[in-house]
Amino acid sequence: MIVLLKKKPGKDELTNLVEWLCSMGLDVHVSEGKERMLLGLIGDTSCVDIDLIRALDIVDDVKRIQEPFKNANRKLHPDDSRIDLGVTQIGGGTFQLIAGPYLIETEEQICTIAREVKQAGATMLRGGAFSPRTSPYAFQGLREEGIRLLLAAKRETGLPVVTELMDIAQLEYFDDVDVIQVGARNSQNYELLRELGRLRKPILLKRGSANTMQELLMSAEYIMAGGNENVILCERGIRTFEPYTQNTLDLSAVPALKELSHLPVIVDPSRAVGIARLVCPMALAAAAAGADGVMVEVHNDPQHALCEGPQSITPAEFAALARKVNSVRSALTC
Amino acid sequence: MIVLLKKKPGKDELTNLVEWLCSMGLDVHVSEGKERMLLGLIGDTSCVDIDLIRALDIVDDVKRIQEPFKNANRKLHPDDSRIDLGVTQIGGGTFQLIAGPYLIETEEQICTIAREVKQAGATMLRGGAFSPRTSPYAFQGLREEGIRLLLAAKRETGLPVVTELMDIAQLEYFDDVDVIQVGARNSQNYELLRELGRLRKPILLKRGSANTMQELLMSAEYIMAGGNENVILCERGIRTFEPYTQNTLDLSAVPALKELSHLPVIVDPSRAVGIARLVCPMALAAAAAGADGVMVEVHNDPQHALCEGPQSITPAEFAALARKVNSVRSALTC
Amino acid sequence: MIVLLKKKPGKDELTNLVEWLCSMGLDVHVSEGKERMLLGLIGDTSCVDIDLIRALDIVDDVKRIQEPFKNANRKLHPDDSRIDLGVTQIGGGTFQLIAGPYLIETEEQICTIAREVKQAGATMLRGGAFSPRTSPYAFQGLREEGIRLLLAAKRETGLPVVTELMDIAQLEYFDDVDVIQVGARNSQNYELLRELGRLRKPILLKRGSANTMQELLMSAEYIMAGGNENVILCERGIRTFEPYTQNTLDLSAVPALKELSHLPVIVDPSRAVGIARLVCPMALAAAAAGADGVMVEVHNDPQHALCEGPQSITPAEFAALARKVNSVRSALTC
Amino acid sequence: MIVLLKKKPGKDELTNLVEWLCSMGLDVHVSEGKERMLLGLIGDTSCVDIDLIRALDIVDDVKRIQEPFKNANRKLHPDDSRIDLGVTQIGGGTFQLIAGPYLIETEEQICTIAREVKQAGATMLRGGAFSPRTSPYAFQGLREEGIRLLLAAKRETGLPVVTELMDIAQLEYFDDVDVIQVGARNSQNYELLRELGRLRKPILLKRGSANTMQELLMSAEYIMAGGNENVILCERGIRTFEPYTQNTLDLSAVPALKELSHLPVIVDPSRAVGIARLVCPMALAAAAAGADGVMVEVHNDPQHALCEGPQSITPAEFAALARKVNSVRSALTC
Repeated sequence: MIVLLKKKPGKDELTNLVEWLCSMGLDVHVSEGKERMLLGLIGDTSCVDIDLIRALDIVDDVKRIQEPFKNANRKLHPDDSRIDLGVTQIGGGTFQLIAGPYLIETEEQICTIAREVKQAGATMLRGGAFSPRTSPYAFQGLREEGIRLLLAAKRETGLPVVTELMDIAQLEYFDDVDVIQVGARNSQNYELLRELGRLRKPILLKRGSANTMQELLMSAEYIMAGGNENVILCERGIRTFEPYTQNTLDLSAVPALKELSHLPVIVDPSRAVGIARLVCPMALAAAAAGADGVMVEVHNDPQHALCEGPQSITPAEFAALARKVNSVRSALTC
Repeated sequence: MIVLLKKKPGKDELTNLVEWLCSMGLDVHVSEGKERMLLGLIGDTSCVDIDLIRALDIVDDVKRIQEPFKNANRKLHPDDSRIDLGVTQIGGGTFQLIAGPYLIETEEQICTIAREVKQAGATMLRGGAFSPRTSPYAFQGLREEGIRLLLAAKRETGLPVVTELMDIAQLEYFDDVDVIQVGARNSQNYELLRELGRLRKPILLKRGSANTMQELLMSAEYIMAGGNENVILCERGIRTFEPYTQNTLDLSAVPALKELSHLPVIVDPSRAVGIARLVCPMALAAAAAGADGVMVEVHNDPQHALCEGPQSITPAEFAALARKVNSVRSALTC
Repeated sequence: MIVLLKKKPGKDELTNLVEWLCSMGLDVHVSEGKERMLLGLIGDTSCVDIDLIRALDIVDDVKRIQEPFKNANRKLHPDDSRIDLGVTQIGGGTFQLIAGPYLIETEEQICTIAREVKQAGATMLRGGAFSPRTSPYAFQGLREEGIRLLLAAKRETGLPVVTELMDIAQLEYFDDVDVIQVGARNSQNYELLRELGRLRKPILLKRGSANTMQELLMSAEYIMAGGNENVILCERGIRTFEPYTQNTLDLSAVPALKELSHLPVIVDPSRAVGIARLVCPMALAAAAAGADGVMVEVHNDPQHALCEGPQSITPAEFAALARKVNSVRSALTC
Repeated sequence: MIVLLKKKPGKDELTNLVEWLCSMGLDVHVSEGKERMLLGLIGDTSCVDIDLIRALDIVDDVKRIQEPFKNANRKLHPDDSRIDLGVTQIGGGTFQLIAGPYLIETEEQICTIAREVKQAGATMLRGGAFSPRTSPYAFQGLREEGIRLLLAAKRETGLPVVTELMDIAQLEYFDDVDVIQVGARNSQNYELLRELGRLRKPILLKRGSANTMQELLMSAEYIMAGGNENVILCERGIRTFEPYTQNTLDLSAVPALKELSHLPVIVDPSRAVGIARLVCPMALAAAAAGADGVMVEVHNDPQHALCEGPQSITPAEFAALARKVNSVRSALTC
């Protein structure tokens, strides 16, 4: 961390500042230029509040050289992480095709979809049981009953399942869930993230729609700081001024997150664009950009889906998508 | 709600759609134009999933005429709401000057600041005990001990207090807190909002940094749908591309929210801009725009504040701000 | 266009409005519902000022059914446009690999790069002569001399060339330029677009960093309304809150623009992300998303480039990119 | 400017870099820390391409200490600029009330409005003659005839006038125009800005809807670098995800621009919010935030305005606005 001082700082103030910084366990290196003085701070600066130092009268600016995330940082863990799900692994060269309905509606619905997407090449099953809806008057999901149905589909097909948890009180229903999803709206719910850090179950962490990549990594850090290293990052679009799509899918986040971090990166094109017709080209683009998988909403009857029909594709469309995605993946390695 | 059909819809599909809409308790009015057919839906359309209908093959587009929020809607409650705090009221022509430190640090700190801001004209005291920090390695607040110190300051000065709750499990400490704050990061934590709807204690609900005004009102609706009508809206800046300020304070939200809703609107300029020098002009602008109050971060020693020093003003600066804000308020009524 | 009237409009006002709309050559279809009245406007509504009607006292809202662009509209021209450049064509199933330096520096530089990218598979050469720089103190390009050097490289390699025009006064130098580029900063410079509409030379129109897709198409419409149908759209990233990349590349614009319009869509990943390491994955993603080509900045010596070195890749990196892009393109058709 | 080098840079590369920097007239100060090496660059770094240096293999990052704008910089010109218009001055404690129609329609229209706004307290008259419209099919303004009518209104009322120029070719009509407006869409049309730098006539420069404050100041710098110091900055809203208002008015730009620069800052609330009802509160907020004036769209018959009726207020509403704005202004000085 570099502290740029104002011209001619008072001697006492300077001594004060240096002593205080040293008292935080940092090694302070004073460098005097012709016009300006700099302090270089060496040591664990992840605990230093950059804004606090910047506020001091004698300080002009502070620049952080190191990223504030540690456990998630590629520099400290050069190799790709692989998240083990028993029957499959996420990251490290594998590719996940995660498919399923936005909301679980009935046992028949989830099991039918599960069978069909498995046959089409899906490697994991998704489905919403606890579901955040913008309106309190909208259908809120089947909750624990939804989890029960999802697990029935898991037993029938053998597909590992991922589903969203909205509150730590719901954890008791997630024993047999393979991956817990944290939704975009809870991406900075730090109390929840801290609790999930106590588990060892894989967490699929969605990027909040107003979160920078660094903030996403800081949210991952909350989970990892508790000892749970099984974090999967998920890009699902950010909020911009463009009204045509629901969010703007930021595919440059795929290679960017993978250079900043060793964690796997999954892309959710359905949620990002909100238009079924655009899901397949965006899934292909995600694969070409180097994602470790895609998660798409599939419904056997989008017109009668209880929610998010317009962004759901049919199992037949998913089969075509899966075939093309695999073809693009092969093309990359040639 | 208006449903625009595609050219020449199939008869069976149309019958199907109309029957299904009627089955949801809606009155469907078919209007046939020269080239197009429209359906007008009358009744409680707040439960209708607009995206679901839009997804149908025979539908071209759907337009909602009514806002999806009800309890928060000005049209259904023309008069301004007043939130009663005993010693004072929020909304309906009153003006709150809420001041205090970002984080509560010691009893002396919070009591000193409380006394000083009271003398300067503050009508309420703020202070963070449970505090969401982007980094898990940053100081996370004094938590329950912080609440204890805040209540000590309340007893000493008589000022009503507002402080943030991050998880419903913390509720037990909030018995004597006058107003519970929901932070921007929890603005769409619907499980939390639902729980707060069961209380009758006033809730200060901050706008999420990526939330539209309508989404803020939908979050208010989550609380109000549970029966808690004591909601105070708070504009604290939205995320934009401008890097100079921490967020972009959207002051047009003040008159806009007040025309959409009867709920009081408070502005938090400290959090919005993140620069102490800009807090006073933005507080004045908020008052001029018609806000029901401002909430500003005040610290007796910003340089040594444990957090957010750069956006905190001193009690002396707050006194000047309070004087000017009151002067602007008077100017508006002349 | 649908006009939703307020409840119980005055008779005279209604007659007035209908007559006025008819006087604009529109066919007005009045549809009376139980609670509301609608007017359906049939005819050429592209000239109707939607805001003007919305402003009327008796009008509640106005909804446009048709997009306001005509010449660029896919609905009116179902087949893909192909822009003919003599030796090659843009759009309609072809794929362009456009490569070259951000700025033309010397004859040797542009000719060397031209030879190398041609050998690597480039189908067109790019290079900046008139170049918009944020600072008036930065190198502004070689201007007419730059065009001369670019044309030398064209003669040597046979590659068609594309370069930016910043003002219509520069047009005299563009006689032998194959495609004129309009930069993002001039994307809504309507006087310039109108002038370019008088030409028949192909125009590569970049999306402004704050422009929606519809606004981009309206800018294309300015050119096409003048009779120049040879417009190529270019996605180059939009402005968002994410600071890691220079802009956020909106790849969903590729399939979205292609469904809205028949015009070819090119992607410029260099300008979008501003980081050389991310250019190749984003070019691959663009190809996978269905773009009609990519335009990338290539410099034989990025470290000594006079400008935009950090986002330029080397000819060797471009050769790898070209090979992979072609491989992804083949994968899509299997 | 500070250059942070990578760990253990090659000796030759370092020598190379230092020599190259010195060749640009900079004084290079090498500072060796325990783990890292820094270069401090002293001198006129405004011409240094920061991205170029950042691209070098041995460089980790570059931080600019000084802003890249000079003529517009408050540090180099501590006193507020005053732009002289003969009968009035802009900046330096004065306050402008600029009013008039979005588009000039007829002589009667512009003269009537001019008389009425003058009587209500307007200090300047605005009106569009050359007007950028998103659609090529919309009314484009009366052009030179519009300027003629505006000047007639100026002669009748004595009010100085401001109107937009879209292309330097239109300059011949602007001889008697007091202030030339550069619209948001031309805010980075550098060829135009450079030409305006050759004049000595005041330029009102609007912030582009995707431009940061620094970019606005760099655009001002283009004009000032040519010798025209008479630049007035204008905040008119930026593009965000919020759909309720046309743009999001960034009022924190008022105090922020005034601390970065000595140039006057005017606020245009009409264009920013696009809703007449919100114009007055936003004008009051702008005054309270310390703006040097406001520019509002006034039409004597908004319902029949040819354009932008919904954001125009009536002369009577303007009179109320003017009275309140003056009242707020007085309140600030007490």
